[in-house]
Amino acid sequence: MKTQVCIIGGGPAGLMLSHILDANGIDNLVLERQTKAYVLGRIRAGVLEHNTVEMLRDYGLGERMDREGMPKDGTQILWENRPDFFIDVKKWTGKQMMAWGQTYITEDLYAARERDGGAVICEAADVTLHDIESDAPHVTYVKDGTTHRIDCRFIAGCDGFHGPSRQAIPRSHRREFLREYPFGWMGVMVEKPPVSNFTYVYHSDGMAMAAQRTPMLSRYYVQAPITDKPGDWSDDRFWETLLHRFPPDVAARIQTGPTIEKSMAPLRSFVSEPMRHGSLFLAGDSAHIVPPTGAKGLNLAFSDVFYLQRALVAFFKTGQGALIERYSDTALRRVWSAENISWRLTKMLHVFPGEDPFEQKIRENDYDLLLHSEAAQHALAYEYIGLPFED
Amino acid sequence: MKTQVCIIGGGPAGLMLSHILDANGIDNLVLERQTKAYVLGRIRAGVLEHNTVEMLRDYGLGERMDREGMPKDGTQILWENRPDFFIDVKKWTGKQMMAWGQTYITEDLYAARERDGGAVICEAADVTLHDIESDAPHVTYVKDGTTHRIDCRFIAGCDGFHGPSRQAIPRSHRREFLREYPFGWMGVMVEKPPVSNFTYVYHSDGMAMAAQRTPMLSRYYVQAPITDKPGDWSDDRFWETLLHRFPPDVAARIQTGPTIEKSMAPLRSFVSEPMRHGSLFLAGDSAHIVPPTGAKGLNLAFSDVFYLQRALVAFFKTGQGALIERYSDTALRRVWSAENISWRLTKMLHVFPGEDPFEQKIRENDYDLLLHSEAAQHALAYEYIGLPFED
Repeated sequence: MKTQVCIIGGGPAGLMLSHILDANGIDNLVLERQTKAYVLGRIRAGVLEHNTVEMLRDYGLGERMDREGMPKDGTQILWENRPDFFIDVKKWTGKQMMAWGQTYITEDLYAARERDGGAVICEAADVTLHDIESDAPHVTYVKDGTTHRIDCRFIAGCDGFHGPSRQAIPRSHRREFLREYPFGWMGVMVEKPPVSNFTYVYHSDGMAMAAQRTPMLSRYYVQAPITDKPGDWSDDRFWETLLHRFPPDVAARIQTGPTIEKSMAPLRSFVSEPMRHGSLFLAGDSAHIVPPTGAKGLNLAFSDVFYLQRALVAFFKTGQGALIERYSDTALRRVWSAENISWRLTKMLHVFPGEDPFEQKIRENDYDLLLHSEAAQHALAYEYIGLPFED
Repeated sequence: MKTQVCIIGGGPAGLMLSHILDANGIDNLVLERQTKAYVLGRIRAGVLEHNTVEMLRDYGLGERMDREGMPKDGTQILWENRPDFFIDVKKWTGKQMMAWGQTYITEDLYAARERDGGAVICEAADVTLHDIESDAPHVTYVKDGTTHRIDCRFIAGCDGFHGPSRQAIPRSHRREFLREYPFGWMGVMVEKPPVSNFTYVYHSDGMAMAAQRTPMLSRYYVQAPITDKPGDWSDDRFWETLLHRFPPDVAARIQTGPTIEKSMAPLRSFVSEPMRHGSLFLAGDSAHIVPPTGAKGLNLAFSDVFYLQRALVAFFKTGQGALIERYSDTALRRVWSAENISWRLTKMLHVFPGEDPFEQKIRENDYDLLLHSEAAQHALAYEYIGLPFED
């Protein structure tokens, strides 16, 4: 088989890239290791930056989101023994965020690919990249016991942290930055109405968080030791811990119930540089991971896709490679901004075992500064909504 | 002897407190361990926040500063391989800072104490605090071989990090926060005209800094390992290191020459809580130390004095102890803000040996954010000029 862009990974980044390239008449093909049902069964982040919302709308994918998603003016922070603080994105930037689950976006993207006759090959095993330093790379994969080969001009590695794309870049040409946190987020899903805002709680026992998927589906998290497993947390233990960390007046409004899903997410910060090697581009989790604080992961994947589709469209339409050359540097500036705000929010809202007591006082002062300085409020809102795309 | 307030320490904090109490008719006395000549020989910070400038003016001590000091709109940061950034305090807060040496302030304060007949007892050895938990504490000291006793209502401990006041608070009633840095500032003084702005340089070899005392007296610093001694740094080595770290165009304007002073300042962050115990108040370096980045030390001492004089004046004029009770909490909020900005500027502008490479990328992104986000520029300027005093 032959195509212009071979996209590895059928998650939201790969599908969105495929969708946009297709809209620009660029031939492409998506390889996904799992079944479509598996991809759609994954539970992921659900807060979209304004930029992500606009991209979905611009490419005809905003209808269900605009009908069923919940626009949000900002995010609530509750702090033990201190006044509440609202990250007022609307006030400071004029923009809103959208509570809308990644699963629904992926569903809409699959539907659009099917409607438009996009090639999405699921259950593609042993995906391997070849000749990525040349102008004529190819990708092989195994399906139904047969090895297939795809020849292409570019490969887009949208295959996540564990996929083969990043690993295809020689180790001597990659620089990896990793920070692992000594805790994770134990999360549950419950079929109850959520509290009205996305809410982070700082408590001396650890962070707690209330999120939402739909008006009848809530997601809650508590900071837990990295060694904990979902089986260590009965529903009773989870709710007791969560409600203890929330202030009593908010805890009284949380509707608990039998959980329908329970999972432990480790927290890590990771970046691999550069994001292009020869004819291979990385986008999304294949190049970077953020801790979930701030919900930047999906948004950052869309940011990469924005810069990548622009570079590819320019290349195929005009033959100009300037944006191809700039892709890695441009995408990485936004990546590091997201890594920075995600790290700072993680640091501010979690208890770090064994931490220097000086650092705890700085954490409290960071929060106090938000309470008292309008300039600090504005600066945080500006970063929280996500930096504007560069020209 | 008997007085209302016994002030321990004849540096700028103690003398300023004495001056203000005197102006309010409150009897007081200053004990200083060193000679006046020794105190005036110490070389210290030279950048005043707007609040400090206003306090000096309000109490009749602004004349020489306004005549000879150099008002500054902000501070310059130069960064290896990145555009320059100016912390534009004037633009964002409407306020200015003042380049004016602590030595001159102390000289003016001694002159004012002498003019007004203030009691300043120098060369007071073995200063010891007694009965600080009572309403009738006393202080003893030795001078000329004789032990003297001062009975008072309150003691103000303005005696610096190594003085006896903080140590007089029982260890069980103190909580100390300490952060020591693995480097110091090697500093020189030279009788040459300074570069026009206070300038920090971030260089991958370490920080460098250009400061100024007068139009004919410059002070320069380079980050150096904590184990270095002034004797390790010949003038040639110092200038070579400094000029290498500055960008060539600025380095070309630096006027070098024989140094008239060379010293190594370790960097540390320190806070002792609370700042009052019974009838003893701590103010200035006796309660807290900031690293020199941001030049907050003297300004923070004046901030403490502002809150302390207000509490003491209210107490002696009206008998109300409310501000006395609030002194520690109120002063500490501003202390922690200064600790926070001093720590963040220190972190941003120095090379930390053995640091996680992720942290270096965050440092660069912090700087990039300042270059691109007006909100971040405003937030930094707001902190840099010093928070407003609380009511």
